[in-house]
Amino acid sequence: MTRIRSILSEAPLLSEVSVSGWVRTFRSNRFIALNDGSTLENLQCVVDFENFDEATLRRINTGAALTVRGTLVESQGRGQKVEVQVSQLEIHGDADPESYPIQPKKHSMEFLREQAHLRIRTNTFAAVMRVRSALAFGVHEYFTRNGFYYFHAPIITGSDAEGAGEMFRVSTLDPLTPPRDESGNVDFGEDFFGKETNLTVSGQLEAEAYAMALGKVYTFGPTFRAENSNTSRHLAEFWMIEPEMAFYDLDANMDLAEDFIQEVIRYVLKHCEEDLAFLDKRLEDEEKRKPQAERSGMGLIEKLRFVTDQPFKRVTYTEAIEILRNSKPNKKKKFQYPIDAWGADLQSEHERYLVEKHFQCPVILFNYPAEIKAFYMRLNDDGKTVRAMDILFPGIGEIVGGSQREERLDVLQEKMQQLGIDEKELWWYLDLRRFGTAVHSGFGLGFERLVQFATGMGNIRDVIPFPRTPQNAEF
Amino acid sequence: MTRIRSILSEAPLLSEVSVSGWVRTFRSNRFIALNDGSTLENLQCVVDFENFDEATLRRINTGAALTVRGTLVESQGRGQKVEVQVSQLEIHGDADPESYPIQPKKHSMEFLREQAHLRIRTNTFAAVMRVRSALAFGVHEYFTRNGFYYFHAPIITGSDAEGAGEMFRVSTLDPLTPPRDESGNVDFGEDFFGKETNLTVSGQLEAEAYAMALGKVYTFGPTFRAENSNTSRHLAEFWMIEPEMAFYDLDANMDLAEDFIQEVIRYVLKHCEEDLAFLDKRLEDEEKRKPQAERSGMGLIEKLRFVTDQPFKRVTYTEAIEILRNSKPNKKKKFQYPIDAWGADLQSEHERYLVEKHFQCPVILFNYPAEIKAFYMRLNDDGKTVRAMDILFPGIGEIVGGSQREERLDVLQEKMQQLGIDEKELWWYLDLRRFGTAVHSGFGLGFERLVQFATGMGNIRDVIPFPRTPQNAEF
Repeated sequence: MTRIRSILSEAPLLSEVSVSGWVRTFRSNRFIALNDGSTLENLQCVVDFENFDEATLRRINTGAALTVRGTLVESQGRGQKVEVQVSQLEIHGDADPESYPIQPKKHSMEFLREQAHLRIRTNTFAAVMRVRSALAFGVHEYFTRNGFYYFHAPIITGSDAEGAGEMFRVSTLDPLTPPRDESGNVDFGEDFFGKETNLTVSGQLEAEAYAMALGKVYTFGPTFRAENSNTSRHLAEFWMIEPEMAFYDLDANMDLAEDFIQEVIRYVLKHCEEDLAFLDKRLEDEEKRKPQAERSGMGLIEKLRFVTDQPFKRVTYTEAIEILRNSKPNKKKKFQYPIDAWGADLQSEHERYLVEKHFQCPVILFNYPAEIKAFYMRLNDDGKTVRAMDILFPGIGEIVGGSQREERLDVLQEKMQQLGIDEKELWWYLDLRRFGTAVHSGFGLGFERLVQFATGMGNIRDVIPFPRTPQNAEF
Repeated sequence: MTRIRSILSEAPLLSEVSVSGWVRTFRSNRFIALNDGSTLENLQCVVDFENFDEATLRRINTGAALTVRGTLVESQGRGQKVEVQVSQLEIHGDADPESYPIQPKKHSMEFLREQAHLRIRTNTFAAVMRVRSALAFGVHEYFTRNGFYYFHAPIITGSDAEGAGEMFRVSTLDPLTPPRDESGNVDFGEDFFGKETNLTVSGQLEAEAYAMALGKVYTFGPTFRAENSNTSRHLAEFWMIEPEMAFYDLDANMDLAEDFIQEVIRYVLKHCEEDLAFLDKRLEDEEKRKPQAERSGMGLIEKLRFVTDQPFKRVTYTEAIEILRNSKPNKKKKFQYPIDAWGADLQSEHERYLVEKHFQCPVILFNYPAEIKAFYMRLNDDGKTVRAMDILFPGIGEIVGGSQREERLDVLQEKMQQLGIDEKELWWYLDLRRFGTAVHSGFGLGFERLVQFATGMGNIRDVIPFPRTPQNAEF
């Protein structure tokens, strides 16, 4: 059994081939467009209807699974170089055109989300998921080549001190009548892990422990947010990539993040040419149906090259605030959230203004106010900013958030006390500062945001196989 | 900053180097053994104590973080080819010998488990986790090279029909006073996902949906079992690899599984030579302390070559039962579970007898009784066996479990009905048989079992960074 990708790229003319896949279309009782998932392209299989009985031909419907055997010949028709002259044909599974939902016509994305087990049989989703797979391999390949170790952070966590968002509780207690302690509260001491546990929101803190021994590590695993956000940018379950490096300061961290994203995008530009060309065309068609003002102005591949072909602009938060404050949209009150003063948290509209209008290149903002950032970020000598950095991309805004970590035990303890974070919860995290502490840094990148960027898909639910969102855990 | 691995392998003599890491030992107030995690080997850094003040030298303790600068020269001492003549030395973080737990002496594995954030600073755990990382990359590399797509199965699942084991509930309901429905039960309609949800035990069913469009896919993600098993072979949270292939029958599935395991083991033999040599020696030392009867008889690398250098023996379940029934230990009543009749489930003792004594090579057992296997396995024409296969390895028993899947809608429906599995729960899984069904197969491999096999570690808690087991979700 040969896959269509290799038949199209390397099988010699006149060779006998055997190929299995699913019917995309069947034209003129003669031309089967067969797809096996190995490539976007279909293999044209030509049946001479005189050689096959009527009953067999009637079963060749969109979605049916077949194996065909025959001779590879030069195609007489347009649209393909080669085709198979079919000598044998076996039907494994039918797809009744009356009931099969994935017919060769345009389906709405909403409809396809309800058919998430079948939507992968469309060109769009197959292309997106092949690019997703290639991006994931590009990530592993990049880090491996650069001396990082892959680190599996725990998914179930007993700590709730990270503060990155609302968490899902994990339990085996009887949900109706949980055991209670003396004060009448749920007795989590009776639970599976002997304490209250949640799904992780980030593997960073544990990755720090490993970086402080192996030097350079990265996580790539699922993380969770129990936030009731029904938007096209949020998932309750998503995959995150979190590199963490000992002896890296914020500058080295920014260098790495920039190089990493550029290299991973280059990887898919190289390995997914055909799927990206299809998705580029798809986005172009979609954009045409939008009002002029809402169009992005850049094609998909153009946007990818925008990221790979120029250095990212590095700007301090303070500089960015000045730029925004004096910007036209701010003065003309076009921002939903006007920028008045230093200390404001930036919204997506501000990030997009900086990237798309002002600098017209990817932007790294750094040295944010301590107040709006997490407890573990390294305090600058000014006492009010921290060594945080966010990378902003066209179209999607923030794609990476990172920082140099606070390596000084006393400063970290003071910060935790201010924020009411219990030292007992994070005794082991403080140990990393007690014993052999050093400058270290890392960042996090939401994998689905990266897939959205690389595929041009507007809704994050369409770049993960089976999305989990409020009120939805089907499949 | 250069990493020690590249200094030892490629830096020219007399070059100036700058290297950061942690002190493993400091001998004679002169010789620092510095490790940065990039390799098992330490870099010897020689300080001339006349150039450094007493106070600085006193801070060079095991575990302290340093950066040294100096000249790379040929080493005069034994044990290393090169060393650094230190000209500058900067101490980033101290490690007080009175309180730092990881001193250069033998620690018990139990003690190190309690210090899971620091145990990675020992040679053994650093070697294990580097091999773990390499194995993971070997897995991705193998599947990518062979035309598979990486598929992220959902972690939170609304289905409890898979029946692979006890599950963890995922919820955001108030645990003390959950909302109730009219009949007084917990109203999961009010929960985050609008229904009761659990952590997945397997991504197989979802992977089947993707295989039936992309052809060949694999999962590599965390899976969960809420089983109260406090053994050296079980974790509540572990990583699983599950390939799934359309148009593969059981024979093709066995061919793939065998080739996959051999190639992944070859990958680490090639890329982790130094760490494996260390772990081989470690296992040898450990074995020496055991009574003769309990020793494995094979060294670590010998065991890896045992798997890569010979074809796996394929035996039907029925043949295996005959062999076991007539075996010496069975006749002499040495098995804890004697083998009397066809239909018995095989225990670890039987699996090890077949691999280690009878065949003396890895064994694939196939065609198991339907009664002892899962509902989705393809029924053979004999009506009593299914196209299941297990791969058995020396030392650890079952490492892979797989099957050809039941592709016939009516047979699958009948089986589900017999077992009381609600069709409504798995409507989408049945759809895969309704539309374009075909022969397909897959298998699952517990990643930590593979890491145990490749590293020779006796306890599964020592091959995952932060193990989750009953009563334990620390860190």
